[in-house]
Amino acid sequence: MPRRLAAIDSGLVVERRRNHWGWGYEDQRFSPEQVRAAAGGLAAHLGLGEGVEVEDPVALEDVRLPPARIRPPADLAEICADDAHARASHAWGKSYADVVRGFRGSFEHAPDFVVYPREEHEVERVLEWCAAAHVAAIPYGGGTSVVGGVRPEVDSSYNGAITLDLGALDQVREIDSISRSARIQAGANGPELERQLGEHGLTLRHFPQSFELATLGGWIATRAAGHFATVWTHIEDFVESVRAITPTGAWESRRLPGSGAGVSPDRMLAGSEGTLGVITEAWVRVQPRPAHRRSAGVVFDDFARGTECVRELSQSGLNPANCRLIDQREAKMTMVGDGSSALLVLGFESTDHPVDAPMARALEICREHGGEAQERGSGAGSAGGRGDSVEGGGGAGEGSRRGGAGTGDRGPDAVGAWRQTFFAAPYLRDVFVAMGAISETFETAITWERFPALHERVTATAEQAMREVGAQPGGVSCRFTHVYPDGPAPYFTVLAKGRRGEELEQWGAIKRAVSDAIIAAGGTITHHHSVGRDHRPWYDRQRPEPFAAALRGAKAAVDPRGIMNPGVLVDPLR
Amino acid sequence: MPRRLAAIDSGLVVERRRNHWGWGYEDQRFSPEQVRAAAGGLAAHLGLGEGVEVEDPVALEDVRLPPARIRPPADLAEICADDAHARASHAWGKSYADVVRGFRGSFEHAPDFVVYPREEHEVERVLEWCAAAHVAAIPYGGGTSVVGGVRPEVDSSYNGAITLDLGALDQVREIDSISRSARIQAGANGPELERQLGEHGLTLRHFPQSFELATLGGWIATRAAGHFATVWTHIEDFVESVRAITPTGAWESRRLPGSGAGVSPDRMLAGSEGTLGVITEAWVRVQPRPAHRRSAGVVFDDFARGTECVRELSQSGLNPANCRLIDQREAKMTMVGDGSSALLVLGFESTDHPVDAPMARALEICREHGGEAQERGSGAGSAGGRGDSVEGGGGAGEGSRRGGAGTGDRGPDAVGAWRQTFFAAPYLRDVFVAMGAISETFETAITWERFPALHERVTATAEQAMREVGAQPGGVSCRFTHVYPDGPAPYFTVLAKGRRGEELEQWGAIKRAVSDAIIAAGGTITHHHSVGRDHRPWYDRQRPEPFAAALRGAKAAVDPRGIMNPGVLVDPLR
Repeated sequence: MPRRLAAIDSGLVVERRRNHWGWGYEDQRFSPEQVRAAAGGLAAHLGLGEGVEVEDPVALEDVRLPPARIRPPADLAEICADDAHARASHAWGKSYADVVRGFRGSFEHAPDFVVYPREEHEVERVLEWCAAAHVAAIPYGGGTSVVGGVRPEVDSSYNGAITLDLGALDQVREIDSISRSARIQAGANGPELERQLGEHGLTLRHFPQSFELATLGGWIATRAAGHFATVWTHIEDFVESVRAITPTGAWESRRLPGSGAGVSPDRMLAGSEGTLGVITEAWVRVQPRPAHRRSAGVVFDDFARGTECVRELSQSGLNPANCRLIDQREAKMTMVGDGSSALLVLGFESTDHPVDAPMARALEICREHGGEAQERGSGAGSAGGRGDSVEGGGGAGEGSRRGGAGTGDRGPDAVGAWRQTFFAAPYLRDVFVAMGAISETFETAITWERFPALHERVTATAEQAMREVGAQPGGVSCRFTHVYPDGPAPYFTVLAKGRRGEELEQWGAIKRAVSDAIIAAGGTITHHHSVGRDHRPWYDRQRPEPFAAALRGAKAAVDPRGIMNPGVLVDPLR
Repeated sequence: MPRRLAAIDSGLVVERRRNHWGWGYEDQRFSPEQVRAAAGGLAAHLGLGEGVEVEDPVALEDVRLPPARIRPPADLAEICADDAHARASHAWGKSYADVVRGFRGSFEHAPDFVVYPREEHEVERVLEWCAAAHVAAIPYGGGTSVVGGVRPEVDSSYNGAITLDLGALDQVREIDSISRSARIQAGANGPELERQLGEHGLTLRHFPQSFELATLGGWIATRAAGHFATVWTHIEDFVESVRAITPTGAWESRRLPGSGAGVSPDRMLAGSEGTLGVITEAWVRVQPRPAHRRSAGVVFDDFARGTECVRELSQSGLNPANCRLIDQREAKMTMVGDGSSALLVLGFESTDHPVDAPMARALEICREHGGEAQERGSGAGSAGGRGDSVEGGGGAGEGSRRGGAGTGDRGPDAVGAWRQTFFAAPYLRDVFVAMGAISETFETAITWERFPALHERVTATAEQAMREVGAQPGGVSCRFTHVYPDGPAPYFTVLAKGRRGEELEQWGAIKRAVSDAIIAAGGTITHHHSVGRDHRPWYDRQRPEPFAAALRGAKAAVDPRGIMNPGVLVDPLR
């Protein structure tokens, strides 16, 4: 089954397949030789010590796949695939553990087959068949879940599990340039939807780290947060209406700029993670590319002073588009600093007016907190030029062909370097797996007054957990991905050198300890990585029980057979 | 049962009772003499013709109350009241029809008794009793619903219906000045919560027209929209966490500045309109009073040109705090213009920085669209002085004693005059009822490209409906209450001279025709007045059926006996 078709510069159309175990496409994988060449230096840079032994991934022809429990029905056979590549590449998401398992050729939860609907009625037909056959349906956008959200792991009460890959539903269907909105199919990934919007001079400007592969439907289903660091941060803030196919019919809200009519139908689909239905399309707010931009890197002696500054910025109403504070360790790790100071990446943008005044006031606030600015020249002159926001893919379409990992939009300075690293990170993690480095990220949100305690607790817990499991600590770093007037969304990166063959156990113990610490310190188990199957133990403690009951009741009403992504968010009522 | 206790300037504490049929308190009602003195001029001003006959309200001792079906249980007797005032004043909300019925002494859906919990455990106990006795529980904040949301009208399967008045739960319980948040009990009304926040130099800045009486819990339950015309408009945008008592336990979310953990529990309570549980308190984002303000009135030759200007403003990213476009007819009616031009009330505010630059740019946009500005002097010098935003209550506490209807914050110009009218409107409507004028408002939201057609259709339908029912048309006017990058929230006011004794039938026919027109034109049946019982026919057409099923399922899970505000949003599963 041809999957991703990409137009190559020559004009030829070739089949392009996803890497079945790691990030990106097959033609983009680092070769074992490249990994070997990089591993030593990388380990030294990250403080993971000497003597790196590089492992090679298990080739597709050698992977272990469980026998299929069910076969595609005849009337759907044309859009189904059950070959090794299709099954293996849809068996896991992209968490650290997923990549390790895929790398080592283990695919025990591979779907029985994958179905690629081309039209919405085919989605309906698939769900109808699943309900009748009591087979679980796992909606799949870009497959970038880091929380087990697309893992077809279901209990034995199901007769099987299939993956519903929305990748063929990738069109921008309608543009309303007066209201600056677009109707976009759920399976369109970041580069693809930006390319099509770009033809109309518009952009969604949603640039999460998953941008290259993740899809609009996946973002809505998981409440992804993206480009904007303040005010409207999550994708649902840009949604006008959503359409989903549930096992009991189409769930489509009116297209409205705002509403107060009862509980929001869109906000019940946002974050439903495929448990209520399959999102097929949405109307979203779009805009022209910004004509005015300013960005600056601001250096602080330490993270605490930077935090106080960012708190004031977050409460100033200046609403910077970018306001990402990076601690000393992360600045060094990502090669945007020498480790002696924290870096604030600050950016303003506008389609309408110069943003010099808010930048000047923001830098004044920074100075009052001891921050030293390194502003990048920009202003109106930068319009349409080399970007100075967190836009990895450069111009629309660039990313889809070259990987979206920071092509064309790099600067020689700290801000540019950080941006480059941002989109390269998923590729880098595949290298970490090959060289035996454990890497995990923990992201949460917390009010300002509790942040220092949470930061201390999470950091100490991660360091202790690494030691206890016998992993060689590479460090714990922190940055803010988003900030609100009442608190930041801190993002922790934990790196360690694992013991070969025991990485998953070591990783699991660290993951559990740090997640416990986040919940105990009052945070959310996720600010934008969603819940899936892997965050369930902590999510179940976080949420109020009557709400969980309400969600189970809602699910039972629209999915009476419990076929939609079972095990995610709630256990189906049976 | 003493209800509202208000500190009077003398320091004495006196009992103060709500007007049992109209807006405000008993001591604030217009006297029949005042109404007679005003009616003729008012009718002429509004184009309702000559010969106004003023009717007097039915006195409390003469009202018709249905016999109580049930009595308060012994252990709750201390906090219950079943006297005529308690029952009558909780029988209706504040829609036009509600006021007419109350004015005429008709209270057929009065609750059997009213309970005033002082502590949360008393709320739990009430719901427990209701579930056991199969009695409907109607949560009641300020009772300002204009959609039948607090009307204890239940079918005969219930053994009775009681009202749960949250007014005694009116305290600001906790202030976090670092994160700029406050924990506030649900029964605190606008002036009361602003007074308490004001003691800490903080404000919620939520100033809907219901400000004087409506409560935080009511706002959250109905997704009220308030002061800010752009970006974060609805109360749920300011909510950190909500706590509610459901018949099956406490539903309390974590206090978080942002989260992506599954479906938002807060967004499922927001807009639930008392059907899932009783909101008892919430953490909300607060802020210092703005230190910098600018406001201007901008005059446009016609509403269409003003609309195009506001569209550009809404897409500019300038995000004015106030951006209310008022058409010619409404400008004349509210005495802020002579009816020859439309008026845009524009305002910027900030706690941190001067807002001259965004105001200058906004006025530039206005000029490009033919708008003529009448800026009010302001700037930093106005900080703490006489306000220039839509703040009826003036300084904190003012409103709670004097009625909140624009005391102390008036200016001689158009902006000030409009603000004065804004908060006086609910009082004025009581006068309309006495003089036989039918008044109704219709508010919706629609994307920009469909707005002109909706505007034309709603206006034409309202005018035709008034003629068809034999009411003498006083006109249809329109303003924007809030604007989004993708569309406005238009607010229509319909005025007519009714036939004495037939006003409710005439009103009902107009209401149905215009609501049909809104739905047919693609709008929402409500942008911020909520659904209640009265908007159900249109809401049921607007919402997707699987979502309705999900909501019924959610309700059944937390309210298995179906006692929570039955008939609102969904019919309980039985």
